[in-house]
Amino acid sequence: MRDDPTAKTMNEEGGGVMAFPADAPLRLESGGQIDGLEIAYKTYGRLNPEGSNAVLVCHALTGDQYVASNHPLTGRRGWGEHLVGAGRPIDPQNYFIICSNVIGGCMGSTGPSSINPASGAPWGLTFPVITLADMVRGQAMLVAALGIERLFAVVGGSMGGMQVLQWAADYPGRLFAAVCIAAAPRHSAQNIAFHEVGRQAIMADPDWRGGAYGAGAARPEKGLAVARMAAHITYLSEAALQRKFGRELQRDGLSWGFDADFQVESYLRHQGASFVDRFDANSYLYITRALDYFDLAAAHGGVLAEAFRAARDVRFCVFSFTSDWLYPTVESRAIVRALNAVGARASFVEIDSDKGHDAFLLDEPVFHDALGGFLTAAAAARDIA
Amino acid sequence: MRDDPTAKTMNEEGGGVMAFPADAPLRLESGGQIDGLEIAYKTYGRLNPEGSNAVLVCHALTGDQYVASNHPLTGRRGWGEHLVGAGRPIDPQNYFIICSNVIGGCMGSTGPSSINPASGAPWGLTFPVITLADMVRGQAMLVAALGIERLFAVVGGSMGGMQVLQWAADYPGRLFAAVCIAAAPRHSAQNIAFHEVGRQAIMADPDWRGGAYGAGAARPEKGLAVARMAAHITYLSEAALQRKFGRELQRDGLSWGFDADFQVESYLRHQGASFVDRFDANSYLYITRALDYFDLAAAHGGVLAEAFRAARDVRFCVFSFTSDWLYPTVESRAIVRALNAVGARASFVEIDSDKGHDAFLLDEPVFHDALGGFLTAAAAARDIA
Repeated sequence: MRDDPTAKTMNEEGGGVMAFPADAPLRLESGGQIDGLEIAYKTYGRLNPEGSNAVLVCHALTGDQYVASNHPLTGRRGWGEHLVGAGRPIDPQNYFIICSNVIGGCMGSTGPSSINPASGAPWGLTFPVITLADMVRGQAMLVAALGIERLFAVVGGSMGGMQVLQWAADYPGRLFAAVCIAAAPRHSAQNIAFHEVGRQAIMADPDWRGGAYGAGAARPEKGLAVARMAAHITYLSEAALQRKFGRELQRDGLSWGFDADFQVESYLRHQGASFVDRFDANSYLYITRALDYFDLAAAHGGVLAEAFRAARDVRFCVFSFTSDWLYPTVESRAIVRALNAVGARASFVEIDSDKGHDAFLLDEPVFHDALGGFLTAAAAARDIA
Repeated sequence: MRDDPTAKTMNEEGGGVMAFPADAPLRLESGGQIDGLEIAYKTYGRLNPEGSNAVLVCHALTGDQYVASNHPLTGRRGWGEHLVGAGRPIDPQNYFIICSNVIGGCMGSTGPSSINPASGAPWGLTFPVITLADMVRGQAMLVAALGIERLFAVVGGSMGGMQVLQWAADYPGRLFAAVCIAAAPRHSAQNIAFHEVGRQAIMADPDWRGGAYGAGAARPEKGLAVARMAAHITYLSEAALQRKFGRELQRDGLSWGFDADFQVESYLRHQGASFVDRFDANSYLYITRALDYFDLAAAHGGVLAEAFRAARDVRFCVFSFTSDWLYPTVESRAIVRALNAVGARASFVEIDSDKGHDAFLLDEPVFHDALGGFLTAAAAARDIA
């Protein structure tokens, strides 16, 4: 497609909300189901006549479908602007790109802030606890509804990378390539601990009201902001924080009080305050819970390789970043070892960066070159180049 | 003293509250002062006739004077039971050991929960912002009031280690040896960031009431518990959390809800819940602020070595732990480099441990042997062995 001059105009956006009929519920790992499932999604580019160039991009904990579009609430550029777009590794001139809001989310897909059709009120904490496998099952329903039998690639970072692994485990025949970035095959004790701090901060906020804050009422913004602040520290490396802020002050001299004296305090407060404008506290609870429940090996007899046994024909590329302490390189190596153990085709690239976990969202040319190279080679093998 | 049979009985406890007269205020770095200063302290062992065997032990952020005594609120053993006691590196049979609650604390020394003599009400947020230098100035007043001209040693870990450095900078002629454990010469951006999360969690709690929760009213327990939980993660290494808890569950199977499913969640909740029984939220604000303001080099023209120029005759021993990511070894090395730069006598010991920052409080025989060896050699040099 790259050499087709008509393709140069194929980068239009599409998307909307896919509403599934009541007789096609989303079956959940917990045993329950979601009736009347809705999945909000965006698309970029066009599906080729062979239907072979579709790329599903999976978002992280607080991401959404606006991977390469301005965010409707914040007006900010898409979270994946360095990954998806003209001239980027995932270019809508080459691929039909799909990005959907995860179930449990708050940007249009069914989640705890959706209306429970049975009660006419927001689900709140009556929403069922979901897992990454459930998120992926919903994505698979969306992809099928879009008429795509087999994805060219599934790509994601952080929680998105875990969804990529889940796709390979659950739908190996429905993807050609898989790119797992800055992720892990299971949540560690420290990962769970940080999430639990965030959940406790939300649930400590009296405006949370057991999850029943609903429309019009005060929302647990202070608790959610504290949760975001704690999590945000884990997204940056110590070196990045020191380089960006060090001990630089907001003003000349100390305040001798509890205002934000240091720039890093002001930055964190801003991260917390702006997050509550675009995110729902109950969604934060549900999605962190899904992450904490994630343990791909446990679902396969405790042997991670078994999760990938049927995915031997998928072309994998695994990325990690040297300064990522949330999902450090050792976790990516465990994924690669498991892939190797079943003879899957796995490339592994560790990117030298001091930016911490957030590097997967930032301008990292070496990472982007490697990702683009992997996809281009895979596209050639898939005859879509 | 070690070979004096009479000394075997000299391990009695003492202490109380030292109340300074109104005409001996504590002058503060902010420019203000505290009138009617009170410092709560404990002692162990006896001062020798030469007055040369006094060891001041400085406590960490949430510590107190009960270094080697059961805590009056929790009934638990002293926080320094591995460091101080019969057969321990700091043995009351050899030394006269002093440990005082820092100013700003909540175990008897003047702090935000004390009564402001001017108003008759608790200080709350009208208490002046204090620094580690102010804490040390208070300790120096206490030590002088106890009749000790020159300490044999000042010993402390974490914030206690920073106080040791402050002692060396401000009172070099009043100490013979200095032991700085698991500390840093200044708070990093990441250190400040974690503290700011804790402060915001406290201040988000409506029961905090701008710091004026006072006696009888509800206390901001939920916010303080969240602050403790976030901080507690930084005290442990990722490896220690994984070894202690991994992904072990509380019960058979997942709850599919927001109860504590994982043991690490339950552990963290317990850490938060038990902390509020023994600690004051405003003290947490003031002491974390003092830590964040700590930057020993900044007070000496930006050159850390200058802080130690007058302390060349003090015998230093600096300890770090390999898995401590709160105050990592690189920070201790910076201290040692600065000491070397002025020709001070500095030993440096990095202890191999996977227990994280908390290792300084735990059973670490190699650490304790090295600490005991350093003190014994220094005691011989001081003619108190």
